[in-house]
Amino acid sequence: MKRIGVVDTTFSRVDMGSMAEDELRASGTGFRIIRRTVPGVKDLPVACKKLIEEDECDIVMALGMPGPEKIDKTCAHEASQGIIAAQLMTNRHIIEVFVHMDEAGNEKELRALAENRTREHARNTFLMLSRPEALRKLAGTGQRQGFEDAGGIDEGQVSAIKH
Amino acid sequence: MKRIGVVDTTFSRVDMGSMAEDELRASGTGFRIIRRTVPGVKDLPVACKKLIEEDECDIVMALGMPGPEKIDKTCAHEASQGIIAAQLMTNRHIIEVFVHMDEAGNEKELRALAENRTREHARNTFLMLSRPEALRKLAGTGQRQGFEDAGGIDEGQVSAIKH
Amino acid sequence: MKRIGVVDTTFSRVDMGSMAEDELRASGTGFRIIRRTVPGVKDLPVACKKLIEEDECDIVMALGMPGPEKIDKTCAHEASQGIIAAQLMTNRHIIEVFVHMDEAGNEKELRALAENRTREHARNTFLMLSRPEALRKLAGTGQRQGFEDAGGIDEGQVSAIKH
Amino acid sequence: MKRIGVVDTTFSRVDMGSMAEDELRASGTGFRIIRRTVPGVKDLPVACKKLIEEDECDIVMALGMPGPEKIDKTCAHEASQGIIAAQLMTNRHIIEVFVHMDEAGNEKELRALAENRTREHARNTFLMLSRPEALRKLAGTGQRQGFEDAGGIDEGQVSAIKH
Amino acid sequence: MKRIGVVDTTFSRVDMGSMAEDELRASGTGFRIIRRTVPGVKDLPVACKKLIEEDECDIVMALGMPGPEKIDKTCAHEASQGIIAAQLMTNRHIIEVFVHMDEAGNEKELRALAENRTREHARNTFLMLSRPEALRKLAGTGQRQGFEDAGGIDEGQVSAIKH
Repeated sequence: MKRIGVVDTTFSRVDMGSMAEDELRASGTGFRIIRRTVPGVKDLPVACKKLIEEDECDIVMALGMPGPEKIDKTCAHEASQGIIAAQLMTNRHIIEVFVHMDEAGNEKELRALAENRTREHARNTFLMLSRPEALRKLAGTGQRQGFEDAGGIDEGQVSAIKH
Repeated sequence: MKRIGVVDTTFSRVDMGSMAEDELRASGTGFRIIRRTVPGVKDLPVACKKLIEEDECDIVMALGMPGPEKIDKTCAHEASQGIIAAQLMTNRHIIEVFVHMDEAGNEKELRALAENRTREHARNTFLMLSRPEALRKLAGTGQRQGFEDAGGIDEGQVSAIKH
Repeated sequence: MKRIGVVDTTFSRVDMGSMAEDELRASGTGFRIIRRTVPGVKDLPVACKKLIEEDECDIVMALGMPGPEKIDKTCAHEASQGIIAAQLMTNRHIIEVFVHMDEAGNEKELRALAENRTREHARNTFLMLSRPEALRKLAGTGQRQGFEDAGGIDEGQVSAIKH
Repeated sequence: MKRIGVVDTTFSRVDMGSMAEDELRASGTGFRIIRRTVPGVKDLPVACKKLIEEDECDIVMALGMPGPEKIDKTCAHEASQGIIAAQLMTNRHIIEVFVHMDEAGNEKELRALAENRTREHARNTFLMLSRPEALRKLAGTGQRQGFEDAGGIDEGQVSAIKH
Repeated sequence: MKRIGVVDTTFSRVDMGSMAEDELRASGTGFRIIRRTVPGVKDLPVACKKLIEEDECDIVMALGMPGPEKIDKTCAHEASQGIIAAQLMTNRHIIEVFVHMDEAGNEKELRALAENRTREHARNTFLMLSRPEALRKLAGTGQRQGFEDAGGIDEGQVSAIKH
């Protein structure tokens, strides 16, 4: 049976780990979930690597909610670099799901964004593990997680790009 | 028979992977293409490394379309660092083709830029694999992918540099 | 018996190492503490790795107090990247406790912040080593170290996010 | 016989590789030059590493001409990080010669700067390979490549520092 | 007999390497110094690693004087990242001594700063090699190299923090 790792943080203001577990279970069967919680996003890289190397996970979700300050952005950047390094050292995918607090205007929106993004990436995680060819069909279609999809650009379109 | 890996994303608004496959097939023969699609640019580094180490690709194209926001620039930077690390860990070239959404003024231009840059780099990829001496002849000639070439500077030129 | 490494710096204006040792001892038993002091935060990564690989520590606390200038922020960033790399190379957690001098308005506040953050992370360190399931219960509850907790967001909340 | 690798790019507007080859040959004998050309600076790190590990080069020159835009600066930064990593993975020096397009006011100046810097670093490369003690004598003398040397500071000097 | 490596640059305007050698010899005995000089700070990481792995140094001093421009700051950052990576790959300390040209107002001040910082870090280097417990006693005492020490913060202090 395949294994999916899920790591989240005590720093996050939303229990993204439980949302990920719930959505993974709704997506299909044939895998076991192994859950870990660490203090903050900078603790995620080694937690993911341990799940792969010590707990034999085939893929891992790394869930975090970086704060709105400049120092928080730096922490998130360092965590992302570490998550990419962990993937390169193990040849396993780690799906990073970060929701920055300043992406939302109030707490209700932040909670909804965190939930939507986590659930959409849980489905991506399931597809990458079980049906990678399903992602192949979505190549270049402007998928977004947590917000409305941007969509693909047909030949001949002239809409200005939204910045 | 040699193998060329092609990885693109579901985030991109243009199917750069199919353009790359098409141009590679038009460039020559003697190789097989292996295609993968991942959610976003940060998933590219390990996907490229897996294509090299698990699927025995001799060279890989990493195709992505980073968004126009500051966070998107950071993601692209992290992905680029990971793509360079993947090359150093495998001693194989990975040709990165990133088209930033704010490089174009509207969707039609963005599509054209993505297509031109992808196709030009597909030809580079083919040359690096099959005829590396062809690149040697273009050393210092100011080649650009997707835009007009800058050209080489002859001795005695005095044109101001375009910024 | 398990081993906890504690490394701090001569650059810090507060003896964070002794605070960490004191709080660890108050948290429980069943471990031995190994203490090191290095000049500055950039010396922390290898000191942590040596504690893990040469002194067989199971987990390490890396304590530092970066200065308020731009160059100090760069040093802290480099140190953090190195601390994450050290974790990935050893599959051991290193709990980074950095207190930036410009987080506090005066020396008294700085000392209190350094002490509170160090002690809260010492408790996290103990839990990660001895009772990781205790962190699992705090997932998504907005824990902060050194400042008041942000708290979790219940469904239906509408408070504006504090920036 | 020792081997010196020389890698340049098709992106550069000046054939820095040929200048390097010419200057190396004028500097001395006892080595063979192996030349490669890649599309851009981000392709340099792995090209250098392959020259060291697959072609047994003892030292390598990495030549590039980053553009004047912010994205070009980021590319150069990523390339430099990769070149340093390649050195650490091989225990061989790679002499990076980057000429940023905005260092010169017009194309004639750019060409002269590229030529001077490339030739000065070719001499450094030769010395590092054949007579490292010659560099020892220049320690702390304010050497610059492509511009006038800054010079050493004698005890008692009071000139303001040029910014 | 233990070995201390000392690497400096031809770019520096002050012969920091000789100052380091002089201070190390004044600090104690029982070690041999191995000196190297490279062109610039980006050549330091691999030079340090070679001193550790090929010349069996137990600790290394990496001495550099980055220029005042933005590009110089980037070079120093890349060098620092490489120096940290070299330490992690070898489990040996490398004491980085960088003096930024814009830290001083004129050449005389720059020379004095470079000398003071180099000599203070030479003493740190000697202590880390021979008497690491001496650093332990300075934990949290606000040591600075090249400038006046900031000092430790006693309980009850209320001075504003100098920015």
